Amino acid sequence: MKLLVLSIFFSVSICASTVEAQKENPVVKYHATLETVKYVYGVAPSVARLGPDDILETNTLDAFGDAIQKPSDTLALVKGDNPLTGPFFIEGAEPGDAIAVEFLNLEVNSSQGVGAFAPGFGALNSTDYTPMIQPALPERIWLYPIHSGDNTATFQAHDSNFSVKIPLHPFLGCIGVAPANGEARSSVVPAEFGGNMDASESSVGNTLLLPVNVPGALLYMGDGHAAMGDGEIAGTAIEVPLRVRLRVRVIKGQRIEWPRFENQNEIMAVGIYRPLDDCLRIAFTQLIQWIHQDYGLSELDAYELLSKVATVHLAEMVDPNYVVIAKVDKKYLPPRKASH
Amino acid sequence: MKLLVLSIFFSVSICASTVEAQKENPVVKYHATLETVKYVYGVAPSVARLGPDDILETNTLDAFGDAIQKPSDTLALVKGDNPLTGPFFIEGAEPGDAIAVEFLNLEVNSSQGVGAFAPGFGALNSTDYTPMIQPALPERIWLYPIHSGDNTATFQAHDSNFSVKIPLHPFLGCIGVAPANGEARSSVVPAEFGGNMDASESSVGNTLLLPVNVPGALLYMGDGHAAMGDGEIAGTAIEVPLRVRLRVRVIKGQRIEWPRFENQNEIMAVGIYRPLDDCLRIAFTQLIQWIHQDYGLSELDAYELLSKVATVHLAEMVDPNYVVIAKVDKKYLPPRKASH
Amino acid sequence: MKLLVLSIFFSVSICASTVEAQKENPVVKYHATLETVKYVYGVAPSVARLGPDDILETNTLDAFGDAIQKPSDTLALVKGDNPLTGPFFIEGAEPGDAIAVEFLNLEVNSSQGVGAFAPGFGALNSTDYTPMIQPALPERIWLYPIHSGDNTATFQAHDSNFSVKIPLHPFLGCIGVAPANGEARSSVVPAEFGGNMDASESSVGNTLLLPVNVPGALLYMGDGHAAMGDGEIAGTAIEVPLRVRLRVRVIKGQRIEWPRFENQNEIMAVGIYRPLDDCLRIAFTQLIQWIHQDYGLSELDAYELLSKVATVHLAEMVDPNYVVIAKVDKKYLPPRKASH
Amino acid sequence: MKLLVLSIFFSVSICASTVEAQKENPVVKYHATLETVKYVYGVAPSVARLGPDDILETNTLDAFGDAIQKPSDTLALVKGDNPLTGPFFIEGAEPGDAIAVEFLNLEVNSSQGVGAFAPGFGALNSTDYTPMIQPALPERIWLYPIHSGDNTATFQAHDSNFSVKIPLHPFLGCIGVAPANGEARSSVVPAEFGGNMDASESSVGNTLLLPVNVPGALLYMGDGHAAMGDGEIAGTAIEVPLRVRLRVRVIKGQRIEWPRFENQNEIMAVGIYRPLDDCLRIAFTQLIQWIHQDYGLSELDAYELLSKVATVHLAEMVDPNYVVIAKVDKKYLPPRKASH
Repeated sequence: MKLLVLSIFFSVSICASTVEAQKENPVVKYHATLETVKYVYGVAPSVARLGPDDILETNTLDAFGDAIQKPSDTLALVKGDNPLTGPFFIEGAEPGDAIAVEFLNLEVNSSQGVGAFAPGFGALNSTDYTPMIQPALPERIWLYPIHSGDNTATFQAHDSNFSVKIPLHPFLGCIGVAPANGEARSSVVPAEFGGNMDASESSVGNTLLLPVNVPGALLYMGDGHAAMGDGEIAGTAIEVPLRVRLRVRVIKGQRIEWPRFENQNEIMAVGIYRPLDDCLRIAFTQLIQWIHQDYGLSELDAYELLSKVATVHLAEMVDPNYVVIAKVDKKYLPPRKASH
Repeated sequence: MKLLVLSIFFSVSICASTVEAQKENPVVKYHATLETVKYVYGVAPSVARLGPDDILETNTLDAFGDAIQKPSDTLALVKGDNPLTGPFFIEGAEPGDAIAVEFLNLEVNSSQGVGAFAPGFGALNSTDYTPMIQPALPERIWLYPIHSGDNTATFQAHDSNFSVKIPLHPFLGCIGVAPANGEARSSVVPAEFGGNMDASESSVGNTLLLPVNVPGALLYMGDGHAAMGDGEIAGTAIEVPLRVRLRVRVIKGQRIEWPRFENQNEIMAVGIYRPLDDCLRIAFTQLIQWIHQDYGLSELDAYELLSKVATVHLAEMVDPNYVVIAKVDKKYLPPRKASH
Repeated sequence: MKLLVLSIFFSVSICASTVEAQKENPVVKYHATLETVKYVYGVAPSVARLGPDDILETNTLDAFGDAIQKPSDTLALVKGDNPLTGPFFIEGAEPGDAIAVEFLNLEVNSSQGVGAFAPGFGALNSTDYTPMIQPALPERIWLYPIHSGDNTATFQAHDSNFSVKIPLHPFLGCIGVAPANGEARSSVVPAEFGGNMDASESSVGNTLLLPVNVPGALLYMGDGHAAMGDGEIAGTAIEVPLRVRLRVRVIKGQRIEWPRFENQNEIMAVGIYRPLDDCLRIAFTQLIQWIHQDYGLSELDAYELLSKVATVHLAEMVDPNYVVIAKVDKKYLPPRKASH
Repeated sequence: MKLLVLSIFFSVSICASTVEAQKENPVVKYHATLETVKYVYGVAPSVARLGPDDILETNTLDAFGDAIQKPSDTLALVKGDNPLTGPFFIEGAEPGDAIAVEFLNLEVNSSQGVGAFAPGFGALNSTDYTPMIQPALPERIWLYPIHSGDNTATFQAHDSNFSVKIPLHPFLGCIGVAPANGEARSSVVPAEFGGNMDASESSVGNTLLLPVNVPGALLYMGDGHAAMGDGEIAGTAIEVPLRVRLRVRVIKGQRIEWPRFENQNEIMAVGIYRPLDDCLRIAFTQLIQWIHQDYGLSELDAYELLSKVATVHLAEMVDPNYVVIAKVDKKYLPPRKASH
């Protein structure tokens, strides 16, 4: 009974969350610094607790711990990649539940962003996991002035006199929970627990579902991006610190194996690993299972239908694991069943 | 000199092609039947010759040779997959040139389309090249009534009482030329010569560039799709015969290694092979080279910029080779140089 | 100076270790039980400390925690996969060092071994990371009587009247240390820290080098195999508890990025991840670097030479990460330099 | 009836072929030159016909058409890669049959071999199909003096004063037939029809089974190797012209989907494509099917048994498709059924 109510509330909330209910909600504020960030998703003392109606207001450092500030700065200044704000203890979350993170507001918290090419990182050059013996490309840093007026960042070429404005689409490159089975994973890695998914879907208007593996889920976030291309092929987005406003709900008893996104129009299943072929297989088998369980189509009907109407978003192919998101517009699906 | 003129003409034509010039152009008509189709991209006697101003009006059979017509029909009726209309000899095309195919009009030439699940074909089940020893899924055929009034096809679930309309987006799943180095390739395979790319970009509003490997290029086409999801994961789109209207121009001296698409807003490089990781690498190294040569950015600046603004379209992961298309909006690029 | 001495000692010890020195060495005995095993490679209180001359005598449970004992037993009885004996604190080991594990004796500690096919595990069927939507294969368990007389295990077919003897080659499927960067990893996963490598090279006559990431290295072991085919394709070897006798030396200041094996005749570099293509790239770039640093060939000469004389052992393609070992016979290399 | 006889004869012949029967057999001699070689596996006029008892004596040019003769020679001198001797029309071979090629004698036909590093080819550097944007490695050529006295070739390092002898193991890097479905494939590509498999198993003592796709099979061979490391990682073996002596038998009605090898001790199934993961899946599903059909084990028993006793040979990971060979010793199998 309770399950049913929560489930309906969840479905509704996705559409209505940005409007008005927040005013009444208590706000939990937490300020992260280079001294308090973490570099691992795992079990650690929580920095704050979030109740079911709480709104979290916090901040994230950029992927370099805000270490790159001027053209002469180098990656040697960076103390650790992807410093994480958290963990936040989600009240009521128990293993076997899912949590739903609603992104209420994400704002770039700097007047410039950073792009960097680091030898050993990128889709078109040697990496630790696809090593080659050719000479490495040199390190390079691009700074992107942020213009709040027209909501853009500016790319300025190094080797020619060209600049262009890029519209901002702020999102959290890293968001995840403590992993299952007692594992602790680097903030550079995405996996079943979320993490460094570099998914532009982690942004306002979308809800992210994550599995709960430990009491309180232990939510971490970081690696803000002002804008990113599909695949993040050179290894970075426009890296920025963010001001973050979000809300987390617990969905009791909803066991999910991989992260999921949802918005007013779409359901989206995330596949994470390598090669991309297997990411795609994970994402689509999860999406078919989701459709089968929540919308009632047979697996083979869902397979056939997705072959005609699905969309695929390649989030990134540069982290130790890659991320592919398989999506379908809800308008192509039967009505959702009352409970999931 | 001549090169320069052709090149400008080409750039302009992409934007203006659908408007009025066609009326004056001579029309070459060719009608394909099950008796005249081919099943291999290679050197064969041409069925017609196309001059630089000619417009081709022809037709393609569906991927099953139009063999599936009613619910009780099975894939055993199919004589050969992806029957191809052609080859068309493109006058003036020599090895080392490229041809630019403008899709002027593509119309579904049937009152129904076909979707089929064939054991051994699909992204989420055993195939010839990713074989598993689990029991196979059974063959299944879905028929999709086509509604010309609202320009949709209807999916009707097999295992439940659900149907939904899908908007039509007709395109040629197969389009390619005779391969290089004396090879001849099956109509099921996409590769450097194009072929079974299953790219929804092979549609009105886009221009496709293909390398020329033999005199006359020898253009083939087939496998019309009324609509398709990214990845074509169950192995088929809504398969239909098409009425085709297109024009082909020769770009002298433009050596390209892989197919490319272009429209008013975007340039798009195609990567074809497996795994998807390598498709992506091919597509993006080609796109970087294209930007470097035609738009003047350094390779490293292009790499960085694409990491912020590129988009990726996964066309299919079900044919013997997979297809990924890397794209960038021209608004993010410097002005194009006068010649390529 | 000290470095030099240690290094020579290490080289010598590989050849001479099995002969006589052990008698004088102190023996550290530790008995592992289902109550004391671990399921994660990470930082945990050590169960014993090993000095530079100590010999460890211990035991490992089989991959199923010794839960499968008779034909009617099922995998539902298994409490956790790959229970690990340890961790052992290696005295003097500091981050930036390597440890060298010499396998002195490994004996099957049971009168039967277990082979199991578990749905979701295997190279030729759906898994969590290469999921398919076909029906799963059923769970199956094969018991292998062990014959100490002729040192064999017997395969008995389920579906026909056929049995055959298989020679024993006991090795530790799991052996690894606490990972770097604060990570903790499941006993099912192999990675840079070693772990579930399923490498038959973890056996008497070989020495395994592992990187040290935390003080004391924290060595774990388990998952004994009585015999295994290349690739371990159905997901299990002949799984057995083992009696283990080994010695661990610290190689100060030898920073290695991936595990390495060495014996009297060969040096062997391990590559771990997926797909196999990348395993191979890791293994061979590591082997080239090893040859370059310790034997003085240029990288390009080493690349060329390995293309003529290297051997490759595919250890397994069934764990979450795959394992490939690239080897070269020392007879093809210049004399080793005095220090590493 | 006839089938049975042929089958037994074939089984026997594998063991006894090198002894004496050849003397009575008619010998077909054919001398290949740079003028008569082919660069494509496909349908072409045969250069000779081989009857069931004929022994073919012929020769192959090296992978560079014998163009590299002295240290100052460069790859620019090469007219085409992997020139092929043939095709030979195998009398009685019809689509649906297999042919069995017995390698009777292979001799290096030169006083030196060639190793070359060509930018764009190799497992640890950018290639056409795994492109990177890093600077390329330079072209390099190593010459290997052949010593018939001790049956070795000598590697001489470029960048240091080191040389070492490598034992000869001559084999045909290329051997294949006209492909199915009207395809014609480059001599650089291995696939279902065999081709550039770079399998050291194509050597004396082994028999190669190839599918027959066109009347007469049309057998081609070339790309002799004096010795090669597993994976052929830098892109070449010790490349040599060969003197070839072999015999071909037709196995009527034996439909095989991929090449197979067999010798006195082992049956071996070849998997060809990319990534290696899929090569392995192809090789092992074929080997399981072979065991099931010819030796009577159930598929699941064969899967389990191979997980304990199979061996894997990675032939190459540098050609456009990769090659993995899965093997099992016949001593682990039930008696072979009388007919296959």
